[in-house]
Amino acid sequence: MEHKFVYTFGDRKAEGNSSMKNLLGGKGANLAEMSNKQIPVPPGFTITTEVCTYFTEKGPVATRELINDAVRAAVAQVEGIMGSRFGDVENPCLFSVRSGARKSMPGMMDTVLNLGLNDEVVEGLARKSNNPRFAWDSYRRFIQMYGGVVLRVGPEHDYDRDPFEQILEAVKEEHHAEFDTQLGVEELQEVVARYKKLVEKQTGRPFPSDPWEQLWGSVNAVFSSWNNERAILYRQLNHIPSNWGTAVNVQAMVYGNMGDSSATGVCFTRNSSTGANEFNGEYLLNAQGEDVVAGVRTPQQIVKQHSLEWAEFAGITEEERLQRFASLEELMPVAFAELVKVETLLERHYRNMQDIEFTIQEGKLWILQTRDGKRTGHAMIKIALDMLNEHMIDEREALMRIEPEKIDELLHPEFNKKALKNATRIAKGLAASPGAAIGQIVFTAADAEGWKAEGKKTILVRTETSPEDLKGMNAAEGILTSQGGMTSHAAIVARGMGKCCIVGASHLRINYMDRTMVVGENVYREGDWISLNGSTGEILEGKVALSATLDNKSYEPILKIADKYTRMSVRTNADTPHDARVAREFGAKGIGLCRTEHMFFEGDRIKAVREMILAKDEAGRQKALEKILPMQRSDFEGIFEAMAGLPVTIRLLDPPLHEFLPHEPEAQADMAHEMGVSVEEVKRKVVSLAEINPMLGHRGCRLGNTYPEITRMQTRAIIEAALNLKERGIEAKPEIMVPLVGHINEFKMQEKIIRKTAASVFVERGDTINFLVGTMIEVPRAALTADEIAKHAEFFSFGTNDLTQMGFGFSRDDIAKFLPVYIAKNLLEEDPFQVLDQRGIGKLMEMGTKFGRSSRPSLKVGLCGEHGGEPSSVEFCHNIGLDYVSCSPYRVLTARVAAAQAAVKSLMI
Amino acid sequence: MEHKFVYTFGDRKAEGNSSMKNLLGGKGANLAEMSNKQIPVPPGFTITTEVCTYFTEKGPVATRELINDAVRAAVAQVEGIMGSRFGDVENPCLFSVRSGARKSMPGMMDTVLNLGLNDEVVEGLARKSNNPRFAWDSYRRFIQMYGGVVLRVGPEHDYDRDPFEQILEAVKEEHHAEFDTQLGVEELQEVVARYKKLVEKQTGRPFPSDPWEQLWGSVNAVFSSWNNERAILYRQLNHIPSNWGTAVNVQAMVYGNMGDSSATGVCFTRNSSTGANEFNGEYLLNAQGEDVVAGVRTPQQIVKQHSLEWAEFAGITEEERLQRFASLEELMPVAFAELVKVETLLERHYRNMQDIEFTIQEGKLWILQTRDGKRTGHAMIKIALDMLNEHMIDEREALMRIEPEKIDELLHPEFNKKALKNATRIAKGLAASPGAAIGQIVFTAADAEGWKAEGKKTILVRTETSPEDLKGMNAAEGILTSQGGMTSHAAIVARGMGKCCIVGASHLRINYMDRTMVVGENVYREGDWISLNGSTGEILEGKVALSATLDNKSYEPILKIADKYTRMSVRTNADTPHDARVAREFGAKGIGLCRTEHMFFEGDRIKAVREMILAKDEAGRQKALEKILPMQRSDFEGIFEAMAGLPVTIRLLDPPLHEFLPHEPEAQADMAHEMGVSVEEVKRKVVSLAEINPMLGHRGCRLGNTYPEITRMQTRAIIEAALNLKERGIEAKPEIMVPLVGHINEFKMQEKIIRKTAASVFVERGDTINFLVGTMIEVPRAALTADEIAKHAEFFSFGTNDLTQMGFGFSRDDIAKFLPVYIAKNLLEEDPFQVLDQRGIGKLMEMGTKFGRSSRPSLKVGLCGEHGGEPSSVEFCHNIGLDYVSCSPYRVLTARVAAAQAAVKSLMI
Repeated sequence: MEHKFVYTFGDRKAEGNSSMKNLLGGKGANLAEMSNKQIPVPPGFTITTEVCTYFTEKGPVATRELINDAVRAAVAQVEGIMGSRFGDVENPCLFSVRSGARKSMPGMMDTVLNLGLNDEVVEGLARKSNNPRFAWDSYRRFIQMYGGVVLRVGPEHDYDRDPFEQILEAVKEEHHAEFDTQLGVEELQEVVARYKKLVEKQTGRPFPSDPWEQLWGSVNAVFSSWNNERAILYRQLNHIPSNWGTAVNVQAMVYGNMGDSSATGVCFTRNSSTGANEFNGEYLLNAQGEDVVAGVRTPQQIVKQHSLEWAEFAGITEEERLQRFASLEELMPVAFAELVKVETLLERHYRNMQDIEFTIQEGKLWILQTRDGKRTGHAMIKIALDMLNEHMIDEREALMRIEPEKIDELLHPEFNKKALKNATRIAKGLAASPGAAIGQIVFTAADAEGWKAEGKKTILVRTETSPEDLKGMNAAEGILTSQGGMTSHAAIVARGMGKCCIVGASHLRINYMDRTMVVGENVYREGDWISLNGSTGEILEGKVALSATLDNKSYEPILKIADKYTRMSVRTNADTPHDARVAREFGAKGIGLCRTEHMFFEGDRIKAVREMILAKDEAGRQKALEKILPMQRSDFEGIFEAMAGLPVTIRLLDPPLHEFLPHEPEAQADMAHEMGVSVEEVKRKVVSLAEINPMLGHRGCRLGNTYPEITRMQTRAIIEAALNLKERGIEAKPEIMVPLVGHINEFKMQEKIIRKTAASVFVERGDTINFLVGTMIEVPRAALTADEIAKHAEFFSFGTNDLTQMGFGFSRDDIAKFLPVYIAKNLLEEDPFQVLDQRGIGKLMEMGTKFGRSSRPSLKVGLCGEHGGEPSSVEFCHNIGLDYVSCSPYRVLTARVAAAQAAVKSLMI
Repeated sequence: MEHKFVYTFGDRKAEGNSSMKNLLGGKGANLAEMSNKQIPVPPGFTITTEVCTYFTEKGPVATRELINDAVRAAVAQVEGIMGSRFGDVENPCLFSVRSGARKSMPGMMDTVLNLGLNDEVVEGLARKSNNPRFAWDSYRRFIQMYGGVVLRVGPEHDYDRDPFEQILEAVKEEHHAEFDTQLGVEELQEVVARYKKLVEKQTGRPFPSDPWEQLWGSVNAVFSSWNNERAILYRQLNHIPSNWGTAVNVQAMVYGNMGDSSATGVCFTRNSSTGANEFNGEYLLNAQGEDVVAGVRTPQQIVKQHSLEWAEFAGITEEERLQRFASLEELMPVAFAELVKVETLLERHYRNMQDIEFTIQEGKLWILQTRDGKRTGHAMIKIALDMLNEHMIDEREALMRIEPEKIDELLHPEFNKKALKNATRIAKGLAASPGAAIGQIVFTAADAEGWKAEGKKTILVRTETSPEDLKGMNAAEGILTSQGGMTSHAAIVARGMGKCCIVGASHLRINYMDRTMVVGENVYREGDWISLNGSTGEILEGKVALSATLDNKSYEPILKIADKYTRMSVRTNADTPHDARVAREFGAKGIGLCRTEHMFFEGDRIKAVREMILAKDEAGRQKALEKILPMQRSDFEGIFEAMAGLPVTIRLLDPPLHEFLPHEPEAQADMAHEMGVSVEEVKRKVVSLAEINPMLGHRGCRLGNTYPEITRMQTRAIIEAALNLKERGIEAKPEIMVPLVGHINEFKMQEKIIRKTAASVFVERGDTINFLVGTMIEVPRAALTADEIAKHAEFFSFGTNDLTQMGFGFSRDDIAKFLPVYIAKNLLEEDPFQVLDQRGIGKLMEMGTKFGRSSRPSLKVGLCGEHGGEPSSVEFCHNIGLDYVSCSPYRVLTARVAAAQAAVKSLMI
């Protein structure tokens, strides 16, 4: 192979550049680009993602053979730039080893720092830096990280804490030290000794002292970590293919912990929570980068103004602030000024808000990393629009910058203002990720998962979070930590998930043993209800009422742009006038699915419905249906009015009749009493209607074709409602949809009943309206014979829920027994009920659309399953030429943006 | 329209010919052809099937307008030939009006005879024929038929007898007449008077006296009858499309009831029960045709030899025979000789066994109709082979003459010879349709249907049957009548259905009121069990044991021909060595589907299976599976041995695990006791495994992918069994089939487990065998993504049962709630689980095959659903290029013939 597998960077030049993201990973490409752009990054080299794939297939030995020479040459080049040598006792060069995939996966990939230290080199480093404490602290950190990440030294039982942390805590306790920084050289040497003993005990071998062995071990660990459980989960959550692989970045270490003229921090070019164009960030004096992210210590603000605000909020005196929490702007004005220059440069260059990691080593600024910053939905929109106004990006790019899924966050309910006023405040923390969350306190990620499985809503309360907590964070309604800042793990991950999060609520004392959270004299226990206001950082007692109003319209300008490009329209699935109005406010262009069965359950209707079911013959059913007719008619009037002038697709009765009967003995007795029949008769009917596979049973148009009187009643209600509105000068545009058609004859029979009934109503009323008759395409056979069906049907609407059920042979009700295993084992990348399976179910849709239009070119084709609000599915619908998608009201905005982005993407091809 | 709608025939020429079956119907085309061939058919004309379609769409008035002139002209032509005039009082010409569809539908379509009679014409006919009794008898028959068929005069309640019959019976009783023939003119006049009163009472109008009104009424009735319930049922049973329509044949009447020199009869050119090449038939003196078919009087044999045999069997003296049952050969030798000449001519002409209706009017032979005769499965084969030997037809035609469905009859069990000897004989009748039938006596067709619905087996016992009984005949196991001959309705229909039937068991007295059947002093009641031997005519008490042996190999020569042409091979679905051996004897070329779950239920295994299900972890399951392993291995050894040298496709465990657990509380308690666990634990497991839609749930490869240890055990059992046989010098060719694959990854994971397990076994044993790994294509998505799947799967087998369930969205377990309505309302022409839906499900198969072979040209593709034994489905499989079909052992012959016929048809295109 003549491939280049290792790319060097540093000293104001690099072999790679920013366009090589796929090969070098996001981090590697950025490091190269920054070097090219004169950004002060520590020198190093990147091992490509191709090597990761090679590693996965061939293993470590072959990989080392493949790249050994190139790595040695690159190390030599770094040594030249840094003026030090890897493994040298007098003047050692140390390295960091980090993963770097195409897409940023924060906290997911394992990292090793301070690589190259051993019992001799540590002394050299101590001498060279004149800081033995720093050297031994680096050494103990190195052994801890390398031991955990590469050698897999860890707790012997799940319930144990990390054994390195236990040793550290023990030593601290023995020496009455509160913070790590209070440990002296001797104590750190003791820690190192105990660490090495631990490693040898668990691995059976002494800790490796050869720097090259350390380097290769770390490279292997990074590549292996691509396939660890957390990484796989993250990829699933974020739709990242497993074959992308990660690159490895080996970089000379620079130190933020070389005394009080050193620091390390993270900064954002804009506010990642609000989107405001204000440079901001946090740093820790005399610390390494992971201290900031892990949230172990409360960080200091970079900008003075923020430091003042924070201190006021935290109730800290100016004196204390200056002593312990002064801003970088105040403490190191030169480095601060350079940082501001660099962040402006970087944002201009990447034309996006940047998330920058930096270290100041004895006054000198080093940029460790920059990447597009994660942001909340609100920030995402504001930043896109601001950059558009600043002429940094154009309209199309502003639109493409919107992650449709995140729009959802904008619609997250907020607390009712009145309820908020009356609520009891527990404490306040940093508003790390906005929204409102209500749940029961749990103290471990595992509990958050377990309780969710039982249907409970939880707030995950931790001192800090770590990548191990990812599943639990995903399961919780909200996250609360007592430590950490806006750039802590909890904050970053929660923002990425769009999940409400409060961090650094330092007044809370969290006790995992007792499972309590204590504030002053108040004790909150596991299971207690609390409410989080992620927009203000307030933590409240109990369940605070939510507000249903939506007054934030910050997204309107983006939607205006979207509407310029979009081809498909977006309708809504709505069964009530309320839902219809909400969706219309979000810009729905009609109703794509109005389910009529929900109307059958309400109030007195269920009684009439049950009368119909118990009826012995058509006449009896007819009588019961006549009672339902006026109620259905008034339902439709309400919905038509809410959607005046826009099409409303009404699906005829779909579920099997047994769904309307009670199954518990008591409820059956009640029903018998109410209906004036014997309990036995009710039971008999329940038994006679029971089905082995109700999903494939007597439902959909099979009902209307066996009991045409139901279709007649529903048609009459629809047509009469439309005529009533017409009299009031309101235009109703009903589209009557026949469900579950598999054979053209099923449709034809229903169509005949519908048209005949409508004709009768027209004659009775002496007036007419326009209406369409079409069908749901949700049975595979319907898609396969769509040419026949479209000869009669005026529109199609893909019911992708059922189409997925039948196409895959997956019962949605029973899938929990095997889908989690399938996802975990990577048999399926996505739950096909959430993300449309384009390869199989999508093929049916493509065929159905093509066949249908072959016999009726004007055929209107839409989608009305859950997928109508899922961006990748919406894009697929655009690509196969659908006229519209229909989704739940709160997904309409997401679908509108997704539809517009699909259109823009087609333009770009 | 310039179309010709009316075709005349008679007087040795005709406007139509035998090639015009679609237009003139079978009967009309034959009548035309016979005229052309100098066969003495009464003159007449045929109104085409196109007019029927026109009638169905436009109604009677438009139809009459369309054809009025042509009909008038044709009547005039017939009048010319017969020398009489329609409606003329002095010299009347009377007509018959009959339906005639493309395919013979005996007894299904309504017929009107003696049309043209009224109060004046009857006197003219009496004078002209010098036989007033005949004239009045014809008149009363005419009113009865016309009243029933055209004017729909019938019983007022379902339980009533036909009111015309009631009147006739009443008059006979009043005049002490036993037979119709004993009624004189006056009595018949009284019958006519009462008939007319009845008609006027029920219809509100006097009986129509205008012959033209009578003619048009009859034509309309024939066209209308195409869509009566019985006709629709018959079409469904016989797969006749409803848009074919029927023609109407109007023909001058000739009379078999003009005294003792007149007769009417039915004859066959060969024996329709055995196939023997012997002319045979039955006739009645001084009677009309419907008397023969209806079985009201016991008919006489045409051939003297048969008459002698019959008399001996019936225990009738030679004197009585000559007096009452003499043969036509003896009574009318001239007409007999002409009939023999004509039957030979007709069989030669049509190159097939003919079923000929004739009438002798005062010594002159008239041929009323000829058609290909219905025959039993045995006769079908013998006649085809005989005609081949006689060089009447060639090999291909002999093959095409076989109705594959009828081969089934050859395999009908016969009674165990020993049991037969010890059985108590009730009586003997005519062996009208062979086979053995065991059932409980019922006396009405409705009961036969009702009892069948309750899962009971019945013998329908009637004095005679009529077209109204068709559904009941179909529902019964066998049919027994006390009257009628080999050409009676019961005999013909039963032979067509391949149903065991005994007719003319004249010693039986059947009393519908008491619901008893009396023979001498023995009384048999409704519900009593009897056995019919349709091959000998013996009626036996109780349930006589059946023999499982199959020694009739009369079909072998046909199969030899079939094998010359066939391209697809036929395998069998077999789960046991016994079934495998049976199928192999029928020529199965391997096993296409060996279901392993049945093996899980047997004996002790279910206990181990339940242990596996209750196990808390993989280790526990593994332990239980180890107990099952040796049993499964020995199962496979048996099956491989039975199929030595032929491929055996083994499907891995398919059903959801809950199918192996008991659902009744008592059985659960037993299981808990047996397994040494608490009842609650068993119940918990049952509840935890319960599914809403088990059909779409945790089954198929979803089991093997969540519990890989099951797949490992089954693979090990298969491979070890094959190796064990190899040691014994027997070749096993396993093909391991993964069920319910919907996504390539599901298959890949199973394939990996299978290949890995096999490799381990090979290493352990130091020997290998060849095997394939393939999949069932039964999930629609699998067919749609077959190109992906075929990259890994070495064979496909379409599981059309599940493919139909998911493709249609029809749960087979629940379909009874709507399929009958769908069939009745003509929404579906066939039950798609019996006859493959070629348009939809077939399309999936076609795509699956095409896609699959696109990535693996050598892909072996088969079908293993119920459809594998259904002829039209087999033909479809041939047409889309399948390599084999697999069906149950007793359908192998049917499938082999169907496959060969499909190949011949392709050659003929």
